[in-house]
Amino acid sequence: MSTHLNSRPGSAGITQTKYYTFASPPNEVLLDSGERLGPITLAYETYGQLNADRSNAILALHALSGDAHAAGISADDNGVSAIEMGMGGDTGPQDNVDYRRLGWWDNMIGPGKAFDTGKYFIICSNVLGGCRGSTGPSSTNPATGRPYGLSFPVVTVGDMVRAQRHLIEHLGIRRLLAVSGGSMGGQQALAWTVAYPEMVRACIPIASSARLSAQGIAFNEVGRQAIMRDPNWRGGDYYGSEPPRGGLAVARMIGHITYLSEESMHQKFGRRLRQKERFGFDFSTDFEVESYLRHQGESFTQRFDANSYLYITKAIDYFDLANGHGSLVKALSGVQARFLLMSFSSDWLYPSSQSKEIVRALKICGKDVSYCEIKSSYGHDAFLLEAAIQTDLISSFLAHTLANG
Amino acid sequence: MSTHLNSRPGSAGITQTKYYTFASPPNEVLLDSGERLGPITLAYETYGQLNADRSNAILALHALSGDAHAAGISADDNGVSAIEMGMGGDTGPQDNVDYRRLGWWDNMIGPGKAFDTGKYFIICSNVLGGCRGSTGPSSTNPATGRPYGLSFPVVTVGDMVRAQRHLIEHLGIRRLLAVSGGSMGGQQALAWTVAYPEMVRACIPIASSARLSAQGIAFNEVGRQAIMRDPNWRGGDYYGSEPPRGGLAVARMIGHITYLSEESMHQKFGRRLRQKERFGFDFSTDFEVESYLRHQGESFTQRFDANSYLYITKAIDYFDLANGHGSLVKALSGVQARFLLMSFSSDWLYPSSQSKEIVRALKICGKDVSYCEIKSSYGHDAFLLEAAIQTDLISSFLAHTLANG
Repeated sequence: MSTHLNSRPGSAGITQTKYYTFASPPNEVLLDSGERLGPITLAYETYGQLNADRSNAILALHALSGDAHAAGISADDNGVSAIEMGMGGDTGPQDNVDYRRLGWWDNMIGPGKAFDTGKYFIICSNVLGGCRGSTGPSSTNPATGRPYGLSFPVVTVGDMVRAQRHLIEHLGIRRLLAVSGGSMGGQQALAWTVAYPEMVRACIPIASSARLSAQGIAFNEVGRQAIMRDPNWRGGDYYGSEPPRGGLAVARMIGHITYLSEESMHQKFGRRLRQKERFGFDFSTDFEVESYLRHQGESFTQRFDANSYLYITKAIDYFDLANGHGSLVKALSGVQARFLLMSFSSDWLYPSSQSKEIVRALKICGKDVSYCEIKSSYGHDAFLLEAAIQTDLISSFLAHTLANG
Repeated sequence: MSTHLNSRPGSAGITQTKYYTFASPPNEVLLDSGERLGPITLAYETYGQLNADRSNAILALHALSGDAHAAGISADDNGVSAIEMGMGGDTGPQDNVDYRRLGWWDNMIGPGKAFDTGKYFIICSNVLGGCRGSTGPSSTNPATGRPYGLSFPVVTVGDMVRAQRHLIEHLGIRRLLAVSGGSMGGQQALAWTVAYPEMVRACIPIASSARLSAQGIAFNEVGRQAIMRDPNWRGGDYYGSEPPRGGLAVARMIGHITYLSEESMHQKFGRRLRQKERFGFDFSTDFEVESYLRHQGESFTQRFDANSYLYITKAIDYFDLANGHGSLVKALSGVQARFLLMSFSSDWLYPSSQSKEIVRALKICGKDVSYCEIKSSYGHDAFLLEAAIQTDLISSFLAHTLANG
């Protein structure tokens, strides 16, 4: 196969990240913490064309390590590909495309894909607190002229969503056809339907949950401890000096284990040794799985800010859709969207039981909800990899939503 | 309840750790790596009385963070209690016993317990490579007069077992009634039956496996990376200076998550906040599970050597009962012991499927094997906590073995 970068079948093409700044003083945003923040910049990309009545806009929402570059080939050469964001699975380089420049959901967004750019106008922005163009702890604090570091306020999924609403309104969109994302992206999608019920017609949370489990909090906390115990972290004030690469790499390695299933690790690595016939009897790399993890940890430190890792995992920990409502059922009672939820059989970080809890609450509220547990060995990463089955389900769900507007 | 330390019902009493040194030059031991090591000291304890024909000896084998103090109350005040070794479960201090001085398997070893000190002579030694009295990387290298550090040779579970055989022979025991342990202790028990078939009459591996999974290797590797990326590790040469506490604490926290089940974490912590009504919106402790993990990580650094953590996890990674035999069935074809295997329904680190694989291989070899999957929510830690059901199964199995000698 020999395909040109800009003519890749089904590709959203060459994309450029754009920036929108709002909440400049004295119009700072009020955060869930009670603190005020501004100005705020959101990095975002769009794919496809907004139709005349502005009814075909879909907001794609990224997970912990994603960014605004969800689809196509980045003109900036700084996107986070699906390979970097998750496991990469079987989508190896079978042609001359530079996969590092592909968007993290490129297999789901493009002409003829699940989020069909021939029909829909898709928006994706880097979250508030991130480090990929949106305002976060590595941004310059206008009050001091220096990076915020830990003086950046702790943000929540709710704060992320409120910031996105500013962007959506800036783009002239009053009502979104759909909001969708996997993992923390699914949590944002859920939060959208509760915070702005009149603005969301359909919600597609994938491999997500209404609240993080104790085990999920535990994994996030260990990742944070790895970063904060790295002497180079310096209380978050490491900009301009050596960043806490070791701690961030360890945090990323922990994360990666939780994104895969035991089955997928067994299939992909098993106990195979790395370029050797027998054990090395030292602490260099013996097993392929060790080499994989070290590489994932190392490469992550090239593109991600350790403080953003702290802030975004904290937002995930805090996320509980029932917060401020008393119960999940009460939280969902006012939503107007119809729902399509998906989970994956081997996902143990956001297991199917957590999606079913949301389905149950929506059913109790009498909402329109479909749910599919997809059989997959890919673990949590499946939302990045199982494109075919997700495409079937999402395509018809969106077409039906648009037709019944 | 008010019970005196030395009269605790079912207690093995006050115990004292002893030491046995062997393999002094020129009689060094040949290790699996091809390196030679000596002298070797093993720290050990014994409980109960060896009978006249020396037929009632049982070797108890500890897991990653255990030591020689398996039962009773340590006279040295430096044992590793079940509370410290694992989760601690529900065995809170309901009387005036100092639980930190109880042995790690005190609920299983003592008068009337699973390993009944009224009937059996139980031996437990700290593993080769450990840091609780046995020779390991923190020991003084006689050739240099300084701690070995990373110049200590990498050891295997096989090496640990060969060292234990020296101790068993030193104690005048030609044949063990049983070998038993959980997790890595179970792996040692299995290795005993293969290495010295004529010396083992019964084998009780609990929550164990014939080889570690790719996921298990991955978790161990991240723990090692946390230690080795801590600047205080200094290539393993940190003795006499500040040890890599941060890295070791993170490694221990990762381990702890894998020892618990999602269900037990949910029951024990859920999303409960730590001594506060609302989120702190900072990076101090919000959730109880965070506080628990930080405490576990911190206290572990008071009693464990970071290099030993590297060496012992490496031994677990390398462990594969089929090594050198071609297959698991071939490895087990020559064993003479009868087997009782147990696993726990919620253990995802050493899942039941791994015990079943051993049972299947033993059955193919026509060996005498019983297996029980115990329903428990405690995860991998269940081997330290589910005393009642294990006691029922082990008591009758041992009695039957002794009666049919």
